[in-house]
This record gives sequence, structure tokens and C-alpha cells, in this order.
Amino acid sequence: MNTQVPSDGGPTRDPEVVALCGGVGGAKLALGLSHILEGERLMIVANTGDDFEHLGLHISPDVDTVLYTLADLANPETGWGRRDETWSFMDALAQLGGETWFNLGDRDLATHVERTWRLRAGETLSEIVADFARKFGIAARILPMSDDPVRTRVETDEGTLAFQRYFVGLKCGPAVRGLSYEGAERATANPALMRALASPDLRAVVICPSNPYLSVAPILSLPGVREALANATAPVIAVSPIVGGRAIKGPTAKIMGELGVDASAASVAAYYAGIIDGFVLDNRDLEIAGSLPVRAMVTDAVMQDLSDREMLARVVLDFADRLASARSRSGNGGVAQ
Amino acid sequence: MNTQVPSDGGPTRDPEVVALCGGVGGAKLALGLSHILEGERLMIVANTGDDFEHLGLHISPDVDTVLYTLADLANPETGWGRRDETWSFMDALAQLGGETWFNLGDRDLATHVERTWRLRAGETLSEIVADFARKFGIAARILPMSDDPVRTRVETDEGTLAFQRYFVGLKCGPAVRGLSYEGAERATANPALMRALASPDLRAVVICPSNPYLSVAPILSLPGVREALANATAPVIAVSPIVGGRAIKGPTAKIMGELGVDASAASVAAYYAGIIDGFVLDNRDLEIAGSLPVRAMVTDAVMQDLSDREMLARVVLDFADRLASARSRSGNGGVAQ
Repeated sequence: MNTQVPSDGGPTRDPEVVALCGGVGGAKLALGLSHILEGERLMIVANTGDDFEHLGLHISPDVDTVLYTLADLANPETGWGRRDETWSFMDALAQLGGETWFNLGDRDLATHVERTWRLRAGETLSEIVADFARKFGIAARILPMSDDPVRTRVETDEGTLAFQRYFVGLKCGPAVRGLSYEGAERATANPALMRALASPDLRAVVICPSNPYLSVAPILSLPGVREALANATAPVIAVSPIVGGRAIKGPTAKIMGELGVDASAASVAAYYAGIIDGFVLDNRDLEIAGSLPVRAMVTDAVMQDLSDREMLARVVLDFADRLASARSRSGNGGVAQ
Repeated sequence: MNTQVPSDGGPTRDPEVVALCGGVGGAKLALGLSHILEGERLMIVANTGDDFEHLGLHISPDVDTVLYTLADLANPETGWGRRDETWSFMDALAQLGGETWFNLGDRDLATHVERTWRLRAGETLSEIVADFARKFGIAARILPMSDDPVRTRVETDEGTLAFQRYFVGLKCGPAVRGLSYEGAERATANPALMRALASPDLRAVVICPSNPYLSVAPILSLPGVREALANATAPVIAVSPIVGGRAIKGPTAKIMGELGVDASAASVAAYYAGIIDGFVLDNRDLEIAGSLPVRAMVTDAVMQDLSDREMLARVVLDFADRLASARSRSGNGGVAQ
């Protein structure tokens, strides 16, 4: 194992598994993985394309969903924010005529206020997230995809919108015509991610069942990430967020339709072509499995409870191990098909 | 009456009464005055020497105490913050290892977050306070003493301390050796205050029973304010915050002792020498009244409930009117003694 001394004083070992994820759907599988892989063996890299400034506060929705989910603090009803939340701040903000289109719970607000002033004081988002994870008692390593700003812009039939304005403010109403990831070409992918992807000891990379366009694409848009995934010695496995032609959660299917793509697991697999070595899809999509350009694993991909999450995590890692062993038997570093 | 069009789109008439005040003690009398003087007839000028940045938020303790008191939102038990408050933010902040020495309630936080981002966006504190007052349904005009930063520093036997660190963090523990009002000499007193003090229609200026050194002195330290008070055509009346040798609220008596000043109403009157035309003190200090360098009014100066506040406000205004009428009979603009 390589050993390193990262600047944030964090873990010193390369992870065994890297999970790329967005918000709620992806975080469920990340939680499952964290129950199987002890401590630093798991690195979770969260999308920050949804990040934005609101009321002067730096909000990192996907990072927070991952933190809250792994700390068992997530609100199971909303899919965002914290459980046992109170809403006095929003009440008082409304009284002052403030902007109330984006809900900020009182507990959740502590995360935003503390993060914002520490960013202004010069800490990096990576350092802050690592510290929050420690304070929340999370053993897995959680990283933002980059410490540089990348902002997802949604081109719609009502003009180009900042992501949260589209997603929360307009509830994904306008039809999507395109997406861009502002700042991505100038951003540096998290060095800890790049180190992990280059490690010869890496066991698997898991692309969690998050929205490919909104949650995973910003990570892939960072310079060097696609290449690092394509060149990783470990298998890269994506889990479909589309089951039976519908998104498990969120607007994925709607957006795919608006972008002129068939809302199917096959389209997701095609979207990841050149990056992934294996694709996990639900039993309901069995008929697609044979026609995919990569090796497929068919399982129950809808996670209702914690045991589903752990089960899916096991299936994904077993699949990765089998691909790796097939690759090793074939005697080359190429993709096992 | 003069008419003006201030830049904040606020009231267009000069006020009849100007009240200078700090936090809780002063705000009580300001509330009493607001029940007697309709709408814009009352201007309340709050100390901002206690303002500070905390967790990246601009906190204005005295301004907020005045706003909350006049809006009937103040917390009667603590003397700061809002009533019906919740504390989820502080809980969550503690969990993240954040700074918890300064308590911020969830509702109160909305005031700080909204103010901070509007300040960063370029609004002045005066504009923001005027808008908050409107939103809270307050008819009186409330002003910060200045839109420029003035920061009270407390020189103590443990070194020079920022005000809130001394006041809240160390609970006024260290002995005070001196006070300074950093930035005061470069600050501009609120132009609306200066206009009001120069108005020939002004009926009275009331220095509320706030701490002279901590709450009123920062206002007096602003360039031109002492002169404007001395030259005002209206009587200037101070109400003693010291009754029977003890402070009605807060550390006033303790600080006076540490500064080598006798903790008495007479010392407060002496402190305001050259500025005030009349001094209101409590029945318990009757024996002092005759020896004061200005005209005295002895009354019940301890305000327990709203009717006490209104009563004291009436006494103060009657006293001012009598001083004005004596001055007018004497045929000159000098102080009636």
C-alpha cells in the first residue's frame, strides 16, 4: 500500500474502493458500501456542481447529503437536510421578507454557517468536509470532487438557469435543452481522488446510481478524471439510476427525455461508454442486459432499506472482483468483456 | 417642519424626539417613548460599538435589542435575543465543534444572516435596519449611530479585549482599566441623527438609562455628536441607569468602580456634563438631586412593566418641555438652571 501524508492531516492510506456520487440515490449505495468496507478503505467523492451561494452562505447539497446519510442524520422523508429538524430560521426569515424559495433547516444551517466562515478564513472545502466527517463520527473518507468552483448550468426553454434555481426554485419544470459545468475546465480534480484512481491497489470504482447528467457528469468533466477512470487498473462499475424506464428518484428520466435520449438503463450504460467495465441494472431491465457494450450484472437495484443498501453494495463489489479476476486471467490490463 | 428625502426612502419628516440608547435598559425607555410618540415622531439611535463579526455574521446586539423590543419580539428572560426561540442551530454547531461561547437562537439567526448578506451586497446598515423595522411593523424610526465600523475595546487587567469577548465570553469578569472606541474618529455619525439634532423643531433628546461607558459613549465619540448635543435648541435629558448605587441592569456599577468612579447617579450626571440640560434620577437617590450641576427630576426610574415604561417616558418628556419653556421665558438659548 502506498502511504501519503495529505495536507489535511486525513487518512494516510489509499482507499480500496472509490465511489462517485451525487445526492440521495447515490448516497444510499455509499452508505451500503460504508457498512461493508471499514474506515478509510472507502473513499466517497461527491459532486459539487450543485453548490451555490445563498444568503451569503456556501451550500454544498450533495456533500451534505453524503455526510448526513453516513452519519445517520439524514431526513428520510425529504431526501435532503437533517432529521429531527426545526424551521424557526425560515419562519423568521419570511418575517423579514428574505428569500424563502430554498429551505434551510435550523440544524442544517450550522453546517452552512460553519463551512462558509471557514472557507472565508482560507480552509479548503476538502479540509472542512474531512473535519465535519470526523465530528459526525464517519469513518469513510468523504471528498468534494474539487476545491475549485464548478457550477452546473441548465439550458432550458426558459433560458440558462443556475442549477438550484432550476432544481429547487422551479422544481425541474422547464424543459432541459443542455447542460454545462461552468468552471470545470479550469478546476483541479481533488488530488486525493486522482491519487486513488492511479493506485495499483485500488479494488473498484463505483459510479453510484445518481443522475448521470446532473450528478456524475460534473465529476467526469474535471480535467483528467475520464482518463484516470479509463486507465484505472481496477474495474469501474456503474449502477443504473433508471429502473424499468423510470428514475428511482428525481428528474433523471424527465431530463433524459428532454435531451432526446431514451430514458432507459441502456442509455445510461451508453453514456458511460469508455469509462466503465461493468454495469449493474435491475431485474426489471433483464432484457437489456445482453445488448450492453460492457459486462452486466442484473440484481435488485432498488434500495428500500439498509439491508438492501448493503446487499447491493456486496453485489457491486463481488461483480468488480469477478471482472478483475477475469481480467487477470486474460493476462492483460484491458477491459474484460 | 423640515422635509427631506433620505436615501433609504424612509420617513420624510424630522423627528420630535431623539432617543440615544444601548441594549436592554435603554430599549425599555425607548419602548415607553414609542407608545407616547406616534410613528416618525420618535427617532431611536442605537449604539453599534458592540457590533462584531461572529462565524462570518455581522451581529448588531443593541440595534437588534431595540428592534425586538419595539416589535414585542424580545426575550424578557434573557434580555437579549427573541422570545419563543429555538436552539437547534447551536446544538448542531456544537456537534461540528464550532464556537459556542456566543449564543445565537434560530430565529435571531435570520436577522444576522439576512443583514450580513445585504451588507455584503452593498446596502448600508441604516437601510437594512429601516427595512427590518418596517417588516417588524415598527412605526418609530430606528437608526444605527453610524454606518461605519466603530468597535468598543475594553482595556482590562487581562489585556485589551473586543467587547463581546469581554461582555459575553468572559462575562465581564476582568477588571476594566479603560475603554476605547476604535474607528470612531474616522466614522461618520448617522446623517439623519445630525439633521435631527440640528432641527429647530426638535422637542427633546433623551439619553436612555443605558451604560454610559459601554452604550452611550460610543455614540458621543462620533465626530460632531457632542457639539450637536451641546448646541441643540431642544433640551437634552439623561435618565440614570444607576439607582441607589447599583445598576438597574448589567455591569455599569462594577465598571464604574473599576474605573475609579463612585458608582452613583451623581457620577453619571457628571459624566454627561456639558451635554445634558436635565437629569432624571430615582426616588432612592433623592439626596443627590440638589447637588447636581443640571436640573434634576426625581421619579420612579425603575421600569418593571410596560406602564412603568410609558410613565417614565411621560415624566421625561414633561421635564424636557418644562426646561424648554423655562429657557424660552429666560429669553435666551442657554441652559435653564
